[in-house]
Amino acid sequence: MDMLWSGWGDPAKAAPLPETVTGLLRDLLGVRPRETGPASLEAIAVPESALSAAARQALADRVGDEAYVRTDAESRIRHTRGKSTPDLLRIRAGEVDDIPAAVVLPGSHDEVLAVLEACAAHGLAAVPFGGGTSVVGGLTPEGKRDFVAVDLRRLDSLLALDEISRTATLQVGLRAPAAEALLNERGFTLGHFPQSYEWASIGGFAAARSSGQASAGYGRFDEMVLGLALATPEGTLELGRAPRSAAGPDLRHLVLGSEGALGVITSVTVRIRPLPETRVYEGWRFASFEAGAAALRRLAQDGPRPTVLRLSDETETFIGLAQPDEIGGTEAPQQAGCMAIAGYEGTAEETAERRARAREVLLACGGEFAGEQPGERWAHGRYNAPYLRDALLDAGAFAETLETAAFWSALPALYDAVRGALTDALTEAGTPPLVMCHISHVYENGASLYFTVVSAQGDDPVAHWAPAKRAACDAILAAGGTISHHHGVGTDHRDWYTKEIGPVGVRILQAVKAEVDPAGILSPGVLIPVR
Amino acid sequence: MDMLWSGWGDPAKAAPLPETVTGLLRDLLGVRPRETGPASLEAIAVPESALSAAARQALADRVGDEAYVRTDAESRIRHTRGKSTPDLLRIRAGEVDDIPAAVVLPGSHDEVLAVLEACAAHGLAAVPFGGGTSVVGGLTPEGKRDFVAVDLRRLDSLLALDEISRTATLQVGLRAPAAEALLNERGFTLGHFPQSYEWASIGGFAAARSSGQASAGYGRFDEMVLGLALATPEGTLELGRAPRSAAGPDLRHLVLGSEGALGVITSVTVRIRPLPETRVYEGWRFASFEAGAAALRRLAQDGPRPTVLRLSDETETFIGLAQPDEIGGTEAPQQAGCMAIAGYEGTAEETAERRARAREVLLACGGEFAGEQPGERWAHGRYNAPYLRDALLDAGAFAETLETAAFWSALPALYDAVRGALTDALTEAGTPPLVMCHISHVYENGASLYFTVVSAQGDDPVAHWAPAKRAACDAILAAGGTISHHHGVGTDHRDWYTKEIGPVGVRILQAVKAEVDPAGILSPGVLIPVR
Repeated sequence: MDMLWSGWGDPAKAAPLPETVTGLLRDLLGVRPRETGPASLEAIAVPESALSAAARQALADRVGDEAYVRTDAESRIRHTRGKSTPDLLRIRAGEVDDIPAAVVLPGSHDEVLAVLEACAAHGLAAVPFGGGTSVVGGLTPEGKRDFVAVDLRRLDSLLALDEISRTATLQVGLRAPAAEALLNERGFTLGHFPQSYEWASIGGFAAARSSGQASAGYGRFDEMVLGLALATPEGTLELGRAPRSAAGPDLRHLVLGSEGALGVITSVTVRIRPLPETRVYEGWRFASFEAGAAALRRLAQDGPRPTVLRLSDETETFIGLAQPDEIGGTEAPQQAGCMAIAGYEGTAEETAERRARAREVLLACGGEFAGEQPGERWAHGRYNAPYLRDALLDAGAFAETLETAAFWSALPALYDAVRGALTDALTEAGTPPLVMCHISHVYENGASLYFTVVSAQGDDPVAHWAPAKRAACDAILAAGGTISHHHGVGTDHRDWYTKEIGPVGVRILQAVKAEVDPAGILSPGVLIPVR
Repeated sequence: MDMLWSGWGDPAKAAPLPETVTGLLRDLLGVRPRETGPASLEAIAVPESALSAAARQALADRVGDEAYVRTDAESRIRHTRGKSTPDLLRIRAGEVDDIPAAVVLPGSHDEVLAVLEACAAHGLAAVPFGGGTSVVGGLTPEGKRDFVAVDLRRLDSLLALDEISRTATLQVGLRAPAAEALLNERGFTLGHFPQSYEWASIGGFAAARSSGQASAGYGRFDEMVLGLALATPEGTLELGRAPRSAAGPDLRHLVLGSEGALGVITSVTVRIRPLPETRVYEGWRFASFEAGAAALRRLAQDGPRPTVLRLSDETETFIGLAQPDEIGGTEAPQQAGCMAIAGYEGTAEETAERRARAREVLLACGGEFAGEQPGERWAHGRYNAPYLRDALLDAGAFAETLETAAFWSALPALYDAVRGALTDALTEAGTPPLVMCHISHVYENGASLYFTVVSAQGDDPVAHWAPAKRAACDAILAAGGTISHHHGVGTDHRDWYTKEIGPVGVRILQAVKAEVDPAGILSPGVLIPVR
């Protein structure tokens, strides 16, 4: 099934906002209903594909079948940009200036290599396409060159599973649920459940250093990757002979996070774990975000560590975004204070024991046990926020998210700075926002902050948002945070990323790119500026 | 205090082998006493320093004092090569063809930058020097160019300690005990205790991806590093705004393991932990290496994880190398089977609880509790093996170590292949060896294998060892292992490393080096071939 072209996910799951919410948006944020709905897919004026007959033939030769080289309007629209709010607003308005010339579907690592070679020969850029869920402009190359979306969906096999070593080798075109199902059949799980889980691909997780909602227990995706194969215009890079090594720099970490700019990841060997016997999620209430954050820090540093651990700030708790599908419901858990969700997965015995010890710590930190209902609501609605965004956009509201991470001691000032920057910029623009935040990933030495912004759309919502986004990014760097904890860099964060790693860091990446991609065809302008 | 120039560590700790061991070496391995002892430091014919007056002046200007630019024979001998057995045999024979032209001691990050600039201007190579404990030829640049040893001992400060985030920023010239003392004063520990602990430096740990004996509990050194500063001829690279990030490739992992070839690491921000209340080590006996390895795997995969976890094979257990200072003693624990050491560090309560749960697992896996004495003996002798090597060399024996890592399922064949390669090669050379092995680092998905080889020296022990070392390295790659789990690449492993990462991997590193070190002055030939 294809994702909704103009929004998120399964079209059948789209639902309008409850009237209670529409009223709130109007009264609280001045949201006015939109006068026009989204364009229809058929009505979009798609320019003729610039793919030459020779290039088309070359690509078809490389993938063995003309059916795997697509230039029809719908295929190309469905591979235009990703799923950030500006992406959705622009595609809904029928703007397709970033449309690929073609969509090509290689079926193997060697076919990917051959496609890159053909693209270089024909002067085409190549942008790897997995689930298409980038929210940072990762699918939007820069420059005048026509580009091909290299859709990896045919690379959808479990290549190997080693029960002794607990590793699995997965091709990158597998969407997360398909990968999880293949592992579940054998009694294992990857344990990677980001909000994009239903649609994102294994390759996207690797290319963008994804982090899932159970990262406290299972780690980040980049921590799960033990080996990988990368196809570049200059040949193949295969890495990972051991879980850890002192044989030089760990080049796996140069590929992870490279977002298609250094090559196309075609398979990854990942750590897997036995399917948990038990999964239990519960709510804890804290008097303040500060008190809750202190409790999360204590668990992250001294243990025991829950599998899922997150904390909504006062506004997010009040609005109830911790349980998105309950927003506007008559039993919505809007209350004062801050709601944390703790989840435990594992064997029944180990889970019970860990939960009991964590309970003591949470109580000692001033937490008030709120029962399992908030945890169950969170688990039930955990993938729903992007659907909610579609409904908000339909209703004339603007909704977007952004995120960062920092060391624990820097977190309070970072929180204030980003919240302040978003509030000030959107208020100045005449659309005062609601800014909500949660901590969703904890480490011994720091944590992430995930912000959700809702406001009225303004007359030109894309232009309206741009200064607020810039102000938030500036605030993140100024307060010592990283420009992204798990969304990535893409083209949207590139200017701040170059500041984060500095001129020597940028030159290093540009030198690597020039070495493996001398023609500069791989996602030009994504991650780093074109040299 | 300076380390023994012709061997390991504190000269006062050198001790001859007990007669019982000398007899064993003679009867078992045909070891004959050496006819000549090591050369004396004063007797070594050191060539005149090739440092020009202009270069000397330039370096002195950069470090602010002529006393920090040394060209005397003793300083240069003490910075010649590292501490592999061939290194020691050659320096004992008075061979100093790899001697630096000078030793320069910068006192700050900016002085390191300035020294690199001066080296480039005067056509000198620059080799960073921390504790001088490389065992892989990491201090031996290649080519005709004269080189300067950049001794980092003056970079010896704790720059910052963040108790909230549990991080410390350490300069790289700190030796491990000094760094540990600075942290201990504040109630924290790094938890990094490799066999080279007493002499190795923080910078060396980072540059070579060190792994300590308590890695099961504290992790590898590269996992502890959250931020770093790298001085290159093209400027500074500073990384680490958050413990984890999705902002591009994790360039920290390009610097870690770069072994001086890409720049000089001048400081690292590391994860620290509270000083443990309790440290307890105990012995467990298994019927076979296979049974013991299965138990270690079970703990690594399903927990609870001891802080220290290691397992000697049958030969190593029989010889008693698990407790090096007991070898040849009348109470030496030579017995059949395989000895494992499990150690627990933490709060009293957590340690007791973890130890009890691990005990159940070890018993279920067929382990027999051997009491705390083997653990105490191991802890007491944990840094002694390199001293023992000196005594063996003095007694006419050859002794060397090498190590690798692989996924669990590949470990048995890797063990057989390396053992077989070493035994065959040295037997063919007329000096049948004793080959011992232990697992000293465990991960969910694999483990390390650490081999110790003892044989007679042969007439030319350096030449004698070379084919066996090559055979072992070939066997490691053929059996799917990595060429090093924690010793690094240096020049000794470079030919196998290039096979491990392949031509695209080598080109990537060469491109990075060309970008940050266009004159090619940084440790030429270390890690990767000169382009």
